[in-house]
Amino acid sequence: MEIEAGIDADELVRMMEACGFGARRLAEAVNIYEEMLSGDYTKFFTLAGAMVPAGMRNIVSNLIRDGRIDVLVSTGANLVHDIIESFSHHALGDPEASDSELREEGVSRIYDVYVGDDDFVRFEELLQEIFPEGGDPMTGTELLRHLGSGIEDEKSILRSASDLTVPIFCPALSDSMIGLQAWLYKQTKKLTIDAFDDVGELVDICYDAERSGIVMIGGGVPKNFALQSMLVTPNSFDLAIQLTTDRPEPGGLSGASLSEAVSWGKIGPKARKVTVYGDATINLPLMVASTLTRLSRRA
Amino acid sequence: MEIEAGIDADELVRMMEACGFGARRLAEAVNIYEEMLSGDYTKFFTLAGAMVPAGMRNIVSNLIRDGRIDVLVSTGANLVHDIIESFSHHALGDPEASDSELREEGVSRIYDVYVGDDDFVRFEELLQEIFPEGGDPMTGTELLRHLGSGIEDEKSILRSASDLTVPIFCPALSDSMIGLQAWLYKQTKKLTIDAFDDVGELVDICYDAERSGIVMIGGGVPKNFALQSMLVTPNSFDLAIQLTTDRPEPGGLSGASLSEAVSWGKIGPKARKVTVYGDATINLPLMVASTLTRLSRRA
Amino acid sequence: MEIEAGIDADELVRMMEACGFGARRLAEAVNIYEEMLSGDYTKFFTLAGAMVPAGMRNIVSNLIRDGRIDVLVSTGANLVHDIIESFSHHALGDPEASDSELREEGVSRIYDVYVGDDDFVRFEELLQEIFPEGGDPMTGTELLRHLGSGIEDEKSILRSASDLTVPIFCPALSDSMIGLQAWLYKQTKKLTIDAFDDVGELVDICYDAERSGIVMIGGGVPKNFALQSMLVTPNSFDLAIQLTTDRPEPGGLSGASLSEAVSWGKIGPKARKVTVYGDATINLPLMVASTLTRLSRRA
Amino acid sequence: MEIEAGIDADELVRMMEACGFGARRLAEAVNIYEEMLSGDYTKFFTLAGAMVPAGMRNIVSNLIRDGRIDVLVSTGANLVHDIIESFSHHALGDPEASDSELREEGVSRIYDVYVGDDDFVRFEELLQEIFPEGGDPMTGTELLRHLGSGIEDEKSILRSASDLTVPIFCPALSDSMIGLQAWLYKQTKKLTIDAFDDVGELVDICYDAERSGIVMIGGGVPKNFALQSMLVTPNSFDLAIQLTTDRPEPGGLSGASLSEAVSWGKIGPKARKVTVYGDATINLPLMVASTLTRLSRRA
Repeated sequence: MEIEAGIDADELVRMMEACGFGARRLAEAVNIYEEMLSGDYTKFFTLAGAMVPAGMRNIVSNLIRDGRIDVLVSTGANLVHDIIESFSHHALGDPEASDSELREEGVSRIYDVYVGDDDFVRFEELLQEIFPEGGDPMTGTELLRHLGSGIEDEKSILRSASDLTVPIFCPALSDSMIGLQAWLYKQTKKLTIDAFDDVGELVDICYDAERSGIVMIGGGVPKNFALQSMLVTPNSFDLAIQLTTDRPEPGGLSGASLSEAVSWGKIGPKARKVTVYGDATINLPLMVASTLTRLSRRA
Repeated sequence: MEIEAGIDADELVRMMEACGFGARRLAEAVNIYEEMLSGDYTKFFTLAGAMVPAGMRNIVSNLIRDGRIDVLVSTGANLVHDIIESFSHHALGDPEASDSELREEGVSRIYDVYVGDDDFVRFEELLQEIFPEGGDPMTGTELLRHLGSGIEDEKSILRSASDLTVPIFCPALSDSMIGLQAWLYKQTKKLTIDAFDDVGELVDICYDAERSGIVMIGGGVPKNFALQSMLVTPNSFDLAIQLTTDRPEPGGLSGASLSEAVSWGKIGPKARKVTVYGDATINLPLMVASTLTRLSRRA
Repeated sequence: MEIEAGIDADELVRMMEACGFGARRLAEAVNIYEEMLSGDYTKFFTLAGAMVPAGMRNIVSNLIRDGRIDVLVSTGANLVHDIIESFSHHALGDPEASDSELREEGVSRIYDVYVGDDDFVRFEELLQEIFPEGGDPMTGTELLRHLGSGIEDEKSILRSASDLTVPIFCPALSDSMIGLQAWLYKQTKKLTIDAFDDVGELVDICYDAERSGIVMIGGGVPKNFALQSMLVTPNSFDLAIQLTTDRPEPGGLSGASLSEAVSWGKIGPKARKVTVYGDATINLPLMVASTLTRLSRRA
Repeated sequence: MEIEAGIDADELVRMMEACGFGARRLAEAVNIYEEMLSGDYTKFFTLAGAMVPAGMRNIVSNLIRDGRIDVLVSTGANLVHDIIESFSHHALGDPEASDSELREEGVSRIYDVYVGDDDFVRFEELLQEIFPEGGDPMTGTELLRHLGSGIEDEKSILRSASDLTVPIFCPALSDSMIGLQAWLYKQTKKLTIDAFDDVGELVDICYDAERSGIVMIGGGVPKNFALQSMLVTPNSFDLAIQLTTDRPEPGGLSGASLSEAVSWGKIGPKARKVTVYGDATINLPLMVASTLTRLSRRA
């Protein structure tokens, strides 16, 4: 590698292609992502880990607005913090602060990011206001689309997905502040969301996806839900990128190798695939910056 | 440490108490677990990672049958594999096998554990048979209790919980083969599970839990769902043990320190708490063996 | 797994043999270690990480005294703390203490273990006293044998190795407090240790080792030095166990797979080998306890 | 973060400053490195992990040639591969190749990088040729300076350090192929390198360093040797950056927090310091690219 002042993100990644270890994996991730975004693929994106509190929100919402995500699968927490960011900002904090003092001050900590109790109060007010009225049965994705349309901030992931009718799947929606608010709302009003209807909706998309690619940020439910939906179709993912800090050896799905997914039929035996081990708050921006640069040069 | 032939698991752990690093953390976990199981605590247990495929099933079901778990929060996958274990056995495999060859042979791999396609076929048949008829609205925990009562194997986690009326919460049930089967079932029959009703059920338990303790195996949705339910009550966990391979620095909830949970009010400021970093397939058996030995000596 | 009160360490490990993930690896490590200790092997043991401060000292010195280690390769720090333990004790501390306050109090921290400045003063006095007089050229292993003979505590690793004429190799001896003291000593007296003579000494042992086994605690210089010495002989290790927290993906030797060592010819293509990922302060005592139990049953 | 096509590495890092987790740590690392390279500091750089085989060689040698490293502390392996790169190239390989087949083909694997046996033959020939004649006593750094002057390739780390009289410390030189070759050379010729003389040389530099900064790539002997040398002086490091995949919890020095080093007096209580967890083959190029860009804008 020969690094000079002013080098752009893509030049940096291109030089990593001839390196070993993580650098090479990142370079391969960009190659695959370039293929995914320039070719004719149904593009899945899964989001786990506290990516929105960490500042990755606009990367995701811009990808949605630019037509670079066709299906988003997310944890509930990322959507909660997306809503909070629409009216407030997460603050930078100290990962070694006294957590009992923070509690007394009404501050909740997400590693080195702080959220104030007042933000959760406004979150509650907003949510109680924008929950759908009438109580007609909805799927989870319909609920999220409805919530997105009630958010003013156009940088919001939920709002962007709603504007572009990109479906957001959140199989564990009850496992989030949105879930708690939904339960509260149901104490006095009607809200009818079936626990399983989303399954079919995503399976249908997988059936129709002749060629498909997936970017997985972290593991968890989003990774598994996207992969399992492909499992019950004759298709499988053709391109797959995983940015994660989890490893295969402890056996959990979050850290499972992409090769393991081939044994299940979730990813195709000839798929191009790569896992980049490391912090996605570094690797995702670098991957996106490099890929967008390449796409713009092609244009 | 002075290790002699024939040393029992508890003697080993007791010597770890005077050691540093992981050994000391494990010894502290046993001290806390002994307090939890011998005192008057509402006992939560969360289960993430492929613990059932790895062979931890009977540890969990025995804890349930012996009254040592009051509330179980699980991933869907662990319940799926619990059902499969009720009629078949996971096989030991090779983590470096060719995954495309495994696919051709109809074998799905979970790191070094294999499951055959025929097991999934039997799983499907069993599930379609034991899904509740009639279509009356149920919560997720009610559905799981019903499924548990349809399983013959008394070593089953689902069956044990059903027998002892221990509620199992699985907020991401749709994100599992049970979810896929439920969606299939719903193509021709009626099944009405609300996405949010479980939330209130767990919150109620948390409200009533004057003193409570929690053991968390892995992170994920189970960890978050148990902690967030406590969040909306005036209570907080008094005892907390976390066995995990995840670390705090990447910021995700799975690896978040138990101290961080204090800032949210999920765990009490004076709670006894410890995280043991490492593979739970080693640390869970050792912790349980040592604790049971102590309890039996007290008796 | 069926865990009952009073279960001994070996029963626990035996049940792990039918499990997946880390449990299975640990069970395999015990199988290999049983073979190593009961068969006719030259037995190497490498020691990195702060194992002595963490309390693993007597495990190692007992293995030496019982003839279960033929060659020890260690970091300098473990030998330094072995000497300190011969007249004092490491204290249990708080991993989250204020490090600048600790400095003011004259306390040095090793994660959750404390060492006082006064211990280092006594260490200095002792070392300046027991350094060999005369200045005749010595190899590093000869120096360490000499130092060991000057230590009163029979539980000392250095003393035990000296008593049993087990060679201790410490290729980075200058990178430790022993190195600093040696340099100090040399300001006024003569001490002649060649930087490379140890290389030949270990290569000779490797040449003569028709069958050999190695236990590696952590990676670092000890792992590499033992493996590289085998490299230049026609032999290779027949049995290999690695207990580590490092992973292969970042490419460093510490986390390198044992399979990688086969490509170099350090470990034989048909060797039995296993890596157990996790904290060695838990996994080493468990492995040793289980193995010694088996050996005692054989006897 | 708002990422646009063509964004340069420094713009990317600047946006990370307002993010959480790893991104924020990397941004802070660049802030500290900018201060270190633009201010009046004695600049230490420690190099562990297989950074040269992974392609990081020119980054290090350019930093040396540009006067941005005053003292280099390295593992032996990185110097060995620096020499090999001076006449050949490491090849990109497959981390999942059959290691016994690689051995038959005479290929040694370093994760996903290959080195051929013929390269080691040429390495041997070159080294036997450039070892110093005469056998006069030398320190390790003098030996390395001599070797560097015998290397033709100006991109070599050893050659660059030799040209600029930047001392390279390698306390575990015997633990490398250079050590094996030195031992071989000594079978027939004279080579006199004292094991401890380097200690004083580095301590002297530390004594003279009124203000100092350190960049640590990986942990191991290089990290410890640089830190311990400061320990015996009245000084301590004022700036410290650590890029590593190791974590504090297992207690080893490699993963020890920089705060822990404050308790020892190695790093000052008011020092600016940050650890970036992740693969240094990604984080080092990004940190250097961003810092150089800033320095060039200042100029």
